[in-house]
Amino acid sequence: MNVLDCIYKRRSIRKYSQKPVDDETLITLVKAATAAPTACNTQPWEFIIVTDDEVRKELKSKLYFGNYDAPAAIVVCGNMKLAMSGPVKDFWIQDCSAAIENILLAATSMGLGTLWIGLHPVESNYRPLYKIFDLPKEVIPLAVIFVGYPEEEKEPRTQFNEKRIYWNKYEPRKHRARKKNTKKL
Amino acid sequence: MNVLDCIYKRRSIRKYSQKPVDDETLITLVKAATAAPTACNTQPWEFIIVTDDEVRKELKSKLYFGNYDAPAAIVVCGNMKLAMSGPVKDFWIQDCSAAIENILLAATSMGLGTLWIGLHPVESNYRPLYKIFDLPKEVIPLAVIFVGYPEEEKEPRTQFNEKRIYWNKYEPRKHRARKKNTKKL
Repeated sequence: MNVLDCIYKRRSIRKYSQKPVDDETLITLVKAATAAPTACNTQPWEFIIVTDDEVRKELKSKLYFGNYDAPAAIVVCGNMKLAMSGPVKDFWIQDCSAAIENILLAATSMGLGTLWIGLHPVESNYRPLYKIFDLPKEVIPLAVIFVGYPEEEKEPRTQFNEKRIYWNKYEPRKHRARKKNTKKL
Repeated sequence: MNVLDCIYKRRSIRKYSQKPVDDETLITLVKAATAAPTACNTQPWEFIIVTDDEVRKELKSKLYFGNYDAPAAIVVCGNMKLAMSGPVKDFWIQDCSAAIENILLAATSMGLGTLWIGLHPVESNYRPLYKIFDLPKEVIPLAVIFVGYPEEEKEPRTQFNEKRIYWNKYEPRKHRARKKNTKKL
């Protein structure tokens, strides 16, 4: 699949077939993730692949906004022993986010659907995962990525808006913010 | 170009030809960026495309680790009036990072090279950009992405390391952290 087509085709998929995703495919997704750039090449990431039914059920029951029946999930974590320290410490978030986007695109190109459930920095979102996965405190779950064969179709799209582009100089413009449904969070 | 091949082929390019990147191509990169998912579909981003020689020179002179002669740059910013508020506010960083990864991959697929220069959360990194671009305080520059035709070749790679994958349960392992060259920062 052409790269631009794949970027537009990637959509958040919430309905999945129960066809399992094989281990090799899941490993390929992590290989794609680890090809992302990281600040000073720190590679501050770790990945927990979830395929076990009991663990999936527990994860689903504990996640806010995680009530989806995907046959697999990848928990993308930053390990603070691997991340940089000092003022550059939080670059791990950007590194792991780039890795996640690689997972989403690689999955799309392989006919899979994905959903990115953001956890960190919302402590109540990610705290339950310490118990589910026996995580040590230096490991911070940034997001859960659900993975499976899609049972819904969505149109490719870019949400391009020319009002968000500037050439060489910023200028004040009125933007319409998206409705913020933060009340539920 | 196949998506996985593109993900592996994307490398940080530091040597560029002076052949200009045309405006339409730069807009395509932003279209790719804005196809990335965002928390609650907030689309908290703005993009400043830099092609003007004077602005490029000023940017280069003010950036830490930004001494590269790319014919174009895209400054990826979060606009706090567009971002969510409360504990979920900082999801804009993950949203913009996914958008950046899309820029890098779209560029790679079009024969371009890129370099991601991280700014936020390091205040001394991003403060100079307020003056260069007349930015209001609600706009935070997350990164500068240099864009141009590459004058160096790098091998495709994944930095996959099986010790960073876990199946269904975390387990303590000894990881070798990359050497942290934070002293320079």
